Amino acid sequence: MSALLLAGKPCADAIYAKISQRVAGATLFTLGFDEPKWTQYTSSLTKSAQKIGVNCQNRTVSDDVLPQEFCELVDTAAKDSRIDGILIQQPLPREFSAAYRFADVNKDLDCCNPLSVASMYEGQAKVCPATPSAVKELLDHYGVGLSGKHVVIVGRGNAVGKPLIHIMLSADATVTVCHTKTVNLPAVCRTADILVSACGVPDLITDEFVTDKTVVVDVGLSFVNGKTHGDVSSDAYEKCRAISPVPGGVGPVTRAVLFENLYKLAK
Amino acid sequence: MSALLLAGKPCADAIYAKISQRVAGATLFTLGFDEPKWTQYTSSLTKSAQKIGVNCQNRTVSDDVLPQEFCELVDTAAKDSRIDGILIQQPLPREFSAAYRFADVNKDLDCCNPLSVASMYEGQAKVCPATPSAVKELLDHYGVGLSGKHVVIVGRGNAVGKPLIHIMLSADATVTVCHTKTVNLPAVCRTADILVSACGVPDLITDEFVTDKTVVVDVGLSFVNGKTHGDVSSDAYEKCRAISPVPGGVGPVTRAVLFENLYKLAK
Repeated sequence: MSALLLAGKPCADAIYAKISQRVAGATLFTLGFDEPKWTQYTSSLTKSAQKIGVNCQNRTVSDDVLPQEFCELVDTAAKDSRIDGILIQQPLPREFSAAYRFADVNKDLDCCNPLSVASMYEGQAKVCPATPSAVKELLDHYGVGLSGKHVVIVGRGNAVGKPLIHIMLSADATVTVCHTKTVNLPAVCRTADILVSACGVPDLITDEFVTDKTVVVDVGLSFVNGKTHGDVSSDAYEKCRAISPVPGGVGPVTRAVLFENLYKLAK
Repeated sequence: MSALLLAGKPCADAIYAKISQRVAGATLFTLGFDEPKWTQYTSSLTKSAQKIGVNCQNRTVSDDVLPQEFCELVDTAAKDSRIDGILIQQPLPREFSAAYRFADVNKDLDCCNPLSVASMYEGQAKVCPATPSAVKELLDHYGVGLSGKHVVIVGRGNAVGKPLIHIMLSADATVTVCHTKTVNLPAVCRTADILVSACGVPDLITDEFVTDKTVVVDVGLSFVNGKTHGDVSSDAYEKCRAISPVPGGVGPVTRAVLFENLYKLAK
């Protein structure tokens, strides 16, 4: 028997339905380098924005931009009352990371400002980063309770793994964090009620990592022969209880959460 | 057979021996409310400071101080080139918490500035908060390796539990975080190689929570009939492999780590 698929689109649509009336007319400013990965992302974001009446001002810079110029672009957007939300490419080269401090916490859509980061870890943030938030939104949408459940996170990166610890603890889950140095990773993963993989290693999570009770959320993203690939192998799909696939799982929800964060910050 | 005691004093002494020549002559500024808990803490800190030639400027304020006045005291210390380290009472009433932002990150001994907090969670901090750092120092001192070990933390508070997640992940441990909503807490705790309890609930950790292989670090602090008490019950002491007791365990190491942080920041 194949696992139940936790598709992202119905969850994303529910978020859009909830927020669209409130965010219509808002303006979002994005800033990043002129690289395909970033421009493809903002272009897909712009399409979603149009559907709910949000304006996107996408600004890209070339490789020869100076850190100070980059900071000034963020500062200008932060001070511009016509701009409601700011999204800056993450991660940036280290010499540019000071720019995050200029993203006003009241406009900081993806929680890049260190003040937003500190608030998040202390459980007091208005918004959390979009990708790990999307994991929780997706589980909520499909009625997967978190309180008292054992959530095993594979991956300890700053983008997904670490903020997800906080989000899951805030939802009263018991949380285990695994990584490359974890001993007997499959056995630890089998103890999970909910297994979240955020590694970017194709087929890392095999059937050995799951039971027929495991709910799996795949947050991995890699490219194999030009195709998008998650962390979870096909034999794990066959065995586990439910799975959020790649593509079509967390991805579309992440974009919706960015607009939901716009809504939360505007309140 | 009783457990091996991981006493704090030899570890603290080793830290003092390492840093005393480098921190002699430095000046530390402390600020908090005129309450017994805080003044007893700074008074014991001042005694330790004298032994290694560090000067303490202890400033206390009364209940009627305004938040702005409190912030100005921190700001003045931050800008005073004769002051090398700043220690502010934690936690503060919410309306005073803006004061933490004035604690220059280069003088922020106990990681109270949100910029220090964000750096810590991103694994880039010069220093981490003293109490959770002391847990790692103590384990290091007694040769308890962390890489690949399963560390179970009981307690998810901002003071100890949460920063300890980061410190243990940075040391390559697999980390599980438990709390009041954890289902079957004793069974989860028995899976630990290293069990850290930071709850402040006397006798929470009984023999049911440990095996004869468990290394226990007690970071609990409560008062029973006027006496200092940890989280670990006497029957757990009898059963586990090793334990850092309360009092006499993490406490003295915490003070030493504050001075070690002064040393790290001065470098």
